[in-house]
Amino acid sequence: MKIFNTIPKIREALREIRRDGMTIGFVPTMGFLHEGHLSLIRIAKRRADVVVVSIYVNPMQFSAGEDLAAYPRDFRRDETLCENEGVNFIFYPNDEEIYPDGFATRISVEGLKEPLCGRSRPSHFDGVATVVAKLFNIVEPDLAVFGKKDFQQLAIIRRMTRDLDFPIEIVGGETVRERDGLAMSSRNKYLSPAEREVAPTLYRALRMAKQRIEDGGAEDSEAVKRVMRAQIESADAFEIDYIEIVDPETLIPVANPSSRKVVIALAVRLGAARLIDNIEVGF
Amino acid sequence: MKIFNTIPKIREALREIRRDGMTIGFVPTMGFLHEGHLSLIRIAKRRADVVVVSIYVNPMQFSAGEDLAAYPRDFRRDETLCENEGVNFIFYPNDEEIYPDGFATRISVEGLKEPLCGRSRPSHFDGVATVVAKLFNIVEPDLAVFGKKDFQQLAIIRRMTRDLDFPIEIVGGETVRERDGLAMSSRNKYLSPAEREVAPTLYRALRMAKQRIEDGGAEDSEAVKRVMRAQIESADAFEIDYIEIVDPETLIPVANPSSRKVVIALAVRLGAARLIDNIEVGF
Repeated sequence: MKIFNTIPKIREALREIRRDGMTIGFVPTMGFLHEGHLSLIRIAKRRADVVVVSIYVNPMQFSAGEDLAAYPRDFRRDETLCENEGVNFIFYPNDEEIYPDGFATRISVEGLKEPLCGRSRPSHFDGVATVVAKLFNIVEPDLAVFGKKDFQQLAIIRRMTRDLDFPIEIVGGETVRERDGLAMSSRNKYLSPAEREVAPTLYRALRMAKQRIEDGGAEDSEAVKRVMRAQIESADAFEIDYIEIVDPETLIPVANPSSRKVVIALAVRLGAARLIDNIEVGF
Repeated sequence: MKIFNTIPKIREALREIRRDGMTIGFVPTMGFLHEGHLSLIRIAKRRADVVVVSIYVNPMQFSAGEDLAAYPRDFRRDETLCENEGVNFIFYPNDEEIYPDGFATRISVEGLKEPLCGRSRPSHFDGVATVVAKLFNIVEPDLAVFGKKDFQQLAIIRRMTRDLDFPIEIVGGETVRERDGLAMSSRNKYLSPAEREVAPTLYRALRMAKQRIEDGGAEDSEAVKRVMRAQIESADAFEIDYIEIVDPETLIPVANPSSRKVVIALAVRLGAARLIDNIEVGF
């Protein structure tokens, strides 16, 4: 496994890979890797000859007052985990490498960046789209793997990739969960033991809502969301940011979720952590 | 010479070119080619093994009320001109190919898109940056050539290319002029014979201003602009949009233009045409 800190160096190494006719799979991360990331790496490993993981906590996707400085980092541990998974290259740049003086370019995926997490994080997805476009141009992978846990991010990356004609296949990886159902997240580290204990309420509410929709009945989305809200609020620990039932591609709210594909998505604050989760229904 | 209308077809052909180790030079145009475009094609021809010209009147860079529908088009003539210059591939897509249903992505180069032409055309350069990023991802050239006549466009493309890490060299081609100094432009077609006759006033004013700055003296930019304005307005045919003396990279106005690189740029309306021109000083 090789570690690169600069764009010219990783480009040079990747040029050789491509010259030898090998395919490149890419997993962009903010590091502090957990089983969720590792499952994405395994997908890339199965699908491509060479796997590149980027580890970069992207300041452009954090607003003032968010957890940029506190975001957990442990490069040595990430390095070992990548090594064990058979990752070939790690790209581990610093901020000067990614955002040189005079940086001025912003990519917006309009219509998709505003709802859901975009309401409380208005510039977040511009930061995500912009850094991902940069990483795509640096790594030039054949395929890139993103987790479904941030399904809005995945929808935005898919749309941007199609719209800007990046010749890259976007692959969504299933959310990996703790045994009690809590979606894995680097931010779970922020939870106190008591908060950690109630956190699985979120996935329980998502599963129950999915069941409710699949069982049929005339229930509309508002009714489903009401029940979820009651269930989550009964734990008396969550501050709900949103619960929405939306179209998986357009993210437009769906009034009647039966007999079609929808995603039920939510975001909450639990202590110091902002947690997101979602479930696909009708897929 | 081969003509491609779809993204998959040109990609397939270019993949072979790259597999054979040949370099690709790219000249994006809106067609209705003139000597200015041909000079860019010749630069690409000298610098790369294979030259791709795109011909696409990009609706995203026109606002309502601008000349999208009237913009001159003559594909058969363009085809012959490209053939004569030894162009290898023409990419000639339609709007559905470039902007499929649900298209939602916008690239903004902030700070550079707002001044000069951006003041009267606020979304113009987002449209330019977005379509150029798309074309870059479709053609994946080694180098791309843009005319200096639209020097704000060139500055924006350079900035975007660097910011998003496109592995592409951006080359600026000198403005080609009619014998009387008028910068070549597809939009010169809109000029009446009387308007055509006064049009060279613009370049005369630019050259005189350059001379004035190069001759030294304590003159500041405001004084230079005042003289230019008087000279252009004396023709009694122009409506001046702007005259600015700016830094070539940041486009920030420069108060004292002596002993440094600046660009003097202007835009005017002359009859039905909006004309731009500029001159480099201190280069």
